[in-house]
Amino acid sequence: MMAKVKKTPRPKAQTPKGFRDYFGAEVSERAEMLSKIAGVYHRYGFDALESSAVETVEALGKFLPDVDRPNEGVFAWQESDEDGNGDWLALRYDLTAPLARVYAQHRNDLPTPYRRFAMGPVWRNEKPGPGRYRQFYQCDADTVGAASVAADAEICAMLSDTLEEVGIPRGDYIVRINNRKVLNGVLEVMGLQDDAQRADVLRTIDKFDKVGEDGVRELLGKGRLDASGAYIDGVGLASEQADPVVAFLTSKGADNAGTIAKLRAAVGGSPVGAQGVDELQQMADLLAAQGYEADRIVIDPSVVRGLGYYTGPVFEAELTFEILDEKGRKRQFGSVAGGGRYDDLVKRFTGQEVPATGVSIGVDRLLAALREKGRVGSVERGPVVVTVMDRDRMADYQAIVAELRQAGIRAEVYLGNPKNFGNQLKYADRRNSPVAVIEGADEKDRGVVQVKDLILGARIAENATLEEWKERPSQFEVARGDLVSKIRDIMDGQS
Amino acid sequence: MMAKVKKTPRPKAQTPKGFRDYFGAEVSERAEMLSKIAGVYHRYGFDALESSAVETVEALGKFLPDVDRPNEGVFAWQESDEDGNGDWLALRYDLTAPLARVYAQHRNDLPTPYRRFAMGPVWRNEKPGPGRYRQFYQCDADTVGAASVAADAEICAMLSDTLEEVGIPRGDYIVRINNRKVLNGVLEVMGLQDDAQRADVLRTIDKFDKVGEDGVRELLGKGRLDASGAYIDGVGLASEQADPVVAFLTSKGADNAGTIAKLRAAVGGSPVGAQGVDELQQMADLLAAQGYEADRIVIDPSVVRGLGYYTGPVFEAELTFEILDEKGRKRQFGSVAGGGRYDDLVKRFTGQEVPATGVSIGVDRLLAALREKGRVGSVERGPVVVTVMDRDRMADYQAIVAELRQAGIRAEVYLGNPKNFGNQLKYADRRNSPVAVIEGADEKDRGVVQVKDLILGARIAENATLEEWKERPSQFEVARGDLVSKIRDIMDGQS
Repeated sequence: MMAKVKKTPRPKAQTPKGFRDYFGAEVSERAEMLSKIAGVYHRYGFDALESSAVETVEALGKFLPDVDRPNEGVFAWQESDEDGNGDWLALRYDLTAPLARVYAQHRNDLPTPYRRFAMGPVWRNEKPGPGRYRQFYQCDADTVGAASVAADAEICAMLSDTLEEVGIPRGDYIVRINNRKVLNGVLEVMGLQDDAQRADVLRTIDKFDKVGEDGVRELLGKGRLDASGAYIDGVGLASEQADPVVAFLTSKGADNAGTIAKLRAAVGGSPVGAQGVDELQQMADLLAAQGYEADRIVIDPSVVRGLGYYTGPVFEAELTFEILDEKGRKRQFGSVAGGGRYDDLVKRFTGQEVPATGVSIGVDRLLAALREKGRVGSVERGPVVVTVMDRDRMADYQAIVAELRQAGIRAEVYLGNPKNFGNQLKYADRRNSPVAVIEGADEKDRGVVQVKDLILGARIAENATLEEWKERPSQFEVARGDLVSKIRDIMDGQS
Repeated sequence: MMAKVKKTPRPKAQTPKGFRDYFGAEVSERAEMLSKIAGVYHRYGFDALESSAVETVEALGKFLPDVDRPNEGVFAWQESDEDGNGDWLALRYDLTAPLARVYAQHRNDLPTPYRRFAMGPVWRNEKPGPGRYRQFYQCDADTVGAASVAADAEICAMLSDTLEEVGIPRGDYIVRINNRKVLNGVLEVMGLQDDAQRADVLRTIDKFDKVGEDGVRELLGKGRLDASGAYIDGVGLASEQADPVVAFLTSKGADNAGTIAKLRAAVGGSPVGAQGVDELQQMADLLAAQGYEADRIVIDPSVVRGLGYYTGPVFEAELTFEILDEKGRKRQFGSVAGGGRYDDLVKRFTGQEVPATGVSIGVDRLLAALREKGRVGSVERGPVVVTVMDRDRMADYQAIVAELRQAGIRAEVYLGNPKNFGNQLKYADRRNSPVAVIEGADEKDRGVVQVKDLILGARIAENATLEEWKERPSQFEVARGDLVSKIRDIMDGQS
C-alpha cells in the first residue's frame, strides 16, 4: 500500500482572536498624542519608564498559580528548564503591577518621591468582543513615595494641562475630585462596622452613575428590578440609614466652598471623614493657587468610580461635549481618565507601605474623542506620486522625488509594473495622493512636466459633465524647474 | 497535631531572566530617534504598521508545533478552550513574519506596491547573556510587491538619509551594496551544481568578514584551524576552483565603475551573474541621479552578511568612525543596519510569490553609536526643584512651579517629607536638577527667592577651598518677579 502524500495545508493569514493591526494614521496619530502627553508629563518632572512586557507571574501577583495553568486573565506560560520546573512568565496586564515590581527592585537607585510615566501595550486574556481587544495601550503617571495631597493635586493639574495639550479645549472637559476618606466618614457616621456590609455599600455606591439617587436608595434598602428585569437584592438598610450615603453622593454645591460645607455636614463628627474633607479643601486651595479653578478641576462627590479601590483622593476626567450614540441620541462623551491614591503599592515585595497616587488615561477613548473633535482622523494626505511613463528613465523619476523630499514634501515613485498607466493613477488614488506628476518623452524633450491635482480632479469627477471632464482643468503643464514650487502651491491650496 | 501555618513568602522583585527595564533618558532618547526615523520613512511614502505582538504559531511559521510545546526560540503558549485544543499563540520574534501575515491578510485593501515601516519590541526565547536580552526593539522598512531594483535603491537612499537625520554625519557612515545573483553567477562559472556544496560555499563566504581572504581560501580548500584551536573542515575545492569566489569577494575597485568591471569578469558568461551585475549598475545609476555618490552608497562585493538568505540586492550600513573596544584597541564601530531582497514573503499563505525588499536598523546599536558621537546620552538635565521651607505654604511653591512650567521650564515641588532640608538638596542632586529654588518665610516677606545654581555649585564643590565653598557664589537672591527669567539665564549658561 502506498503511503498517501499529505500536503501541508497553508497557514491562515489571521491575527489571533481579539488582536488587531493598526495601519498608517492609526499608528502615527496615537504616537503623536502620546508624545504630546509625554511632553507635559516631562515638564512636570515625571520620568519615562519602560518596563519589560514580560513579568514573572509571581511578581505580577494578582494571578498566582493555584492550578496547573495559572493564566486566569493573563497570557502566561512556563519557562522550560531541564527539570520542567521553570518560572511561570506572563504578559503584563496593566502598568501598575510592573511599577510596583520596578520600584521594589530599584528603590535604592530611584529618587524618592519617584514620579514616573509609562506608555505601552498591555495584554488581557479575556473573551474578546466588539471593540474589545486583548492587547491595548495604557498611559499612566504615578508618584510613589509622596504622602502629601500636593502629589494628588499635581496630578490633577497635569491631567488638565494634558487634555488641553492634546487638543481638548478648556470648557470641553472637567476633572472631578472626590475622596475615599469622606466616604469612610459617612460609613462611620452610619455606624456600619460590619466589613461585609460596608463592602455591600461600596459596591452599591459604585453603581451610582448608572442607577442614580433613587436606584442607590433602592439598592441600599430592599433591592431593585434592573433594566434586564432581574431583581437585585438590596443591602437591607433602613431608609434613614441610607440618608447619609445619598447626602454624600449628592452634596455637590454651587461651588467648591458649598460642596465642602455639605460634605462637612455629611461626615458629622467622624475624624477620618473630617480628614477627607480637609484633603479636598487642601487640593482645591493648591490648585487655585496655580490658577486651576472649578471650571477645570472641581470637587464632585458623585465621582464614585474606583472609590472602593483607592484609599484617599480619587479623580476622573470627563469630556463634557456631546456626541451621538449608536441610536442617534445625544450624550456626553464621558470619562477618558481616572486615578487616585493607593498606599500598598510595594508592600507585597518589601513589607513596607509606600504611599502612591496616579492617573491612567484611556488611550483609545481619548483618541476617539480627538476624532470627534476633528483634531485627528481626517483622512491622511498621501505622498505625491511620480508616475513612470518610460521604464528606462527611472533615474529621472527618482531625481524628481529626491527633489520633492529635500523640499520636505512626501513623495514616491510608482514602483509597480508601469505598463498600464491607469493602474498608476488608481494607485495614486488608493494612496490618497494630493498630486500626480507625469513626465513622458515629449515633456522631457520640452523641459516640462504634467502636474495633476488629484483632490481637485476628484471633486470635478464627482460633478462634472463629460465636456468639463474632458477639459481636465485639474491638470497643468509646468516647467521642470518650477515643479517643486508649483506642487507646494497646489498642496497649500488643498489643505 | 496542629497544622503548621505556612507564611507565604514575599515575591521576588525581579524581571524575568534576560529582560530589563528602561529608565528616563533611555526611553526618551530611543523614542526621539525612532520618531526621526519615522519622519524620514514617512517622507519616502512609507506607512506605519503596528501589528499585534501576539501571533498564532501557525502564522509565524518558522516554529510549527512538532512536539507538545512548540516554543523553540519563541515564547509560546496554548489558548485554553473547553476541549483543551486551543490555538498555539506566540510573541513575534521579528517584524518580517508579521508583515507576511498582514500582507497576506489585508492584501486586497493595501496599495501595491505596499511600503510600510514598523517599530517595536520583539521577543526571543533564547539563553540570555551579557548585553543580550530576550526583548529588544526592531525597526524595519519594507516594500512589498515591487520587483524593480528601483525599490532596493530607494531603500538604500532612505537608509542614508535616515543615518544623517538621527545624527551620523556624512563621512561617518557608508551604505555598501552587493547582490546575491552575482554570487550565483560565480557559482555557475565554478560549475558547482551540487546543492550541498553550494550551501557549503555560501556558509564559508558568510565568514569572510571574520576570517578574511586567506581564511576563506583555507575554508574553501582543506580546512582551517580556528582561533579557539579547533580544526574546521574545508569544502574541499581545489585552489583554482576557489579563485572565482575570492575574485568576487575582493573585486572592489577604485570606484563603482571599476568594481562593476571586475565583477563582470568574475561572472564570465553566466546569465544570472550578468543580471546581478546589471542590477548593481542600475542601482548605482539610480542613486547617482538622486545625488547619492560612492561617498555615501557604494558597491562592495565584500558585503556577505545575509548573502545566503536574500535573493537579489543586499545592503548594509556601516559606521566608519573608530571606537575603543573592551581592550582599549581602536576599531570601526561597524554595522548598524542591513537588508536586501527576498521574494517568498507571502508564498506560505497564498501560494503566490511576491517580491519584497527591506531594511532593518539595529535600534540598540544605532543608539550606542549616537552615544559614542555625543548625540545622545549626556546625562539628562533634571527638573528645577522648588524646595519646601514651610509646609503650610505648599500653595506658594506650587504656584512657582506652575509659573516655570508655563514658561516651558521643567519643574517640580519637593513632595517628600520636607523636615530635613539636606534631604531636599540631596533629592535635587539625584534628579540632576540644574537649579533649586528656596523661599523661606523671610524671603517671602521681602518678596525675594533664593536661587541655587546646582551645576555651578557642584563644580565649585569639586575644586573649592573651604573659604570659596563658604562664599557659595552659586547661590543668588532674586526678586520673586524676576524668578523665571533668572532661572532661564542660569540654565542657558549651563548648557
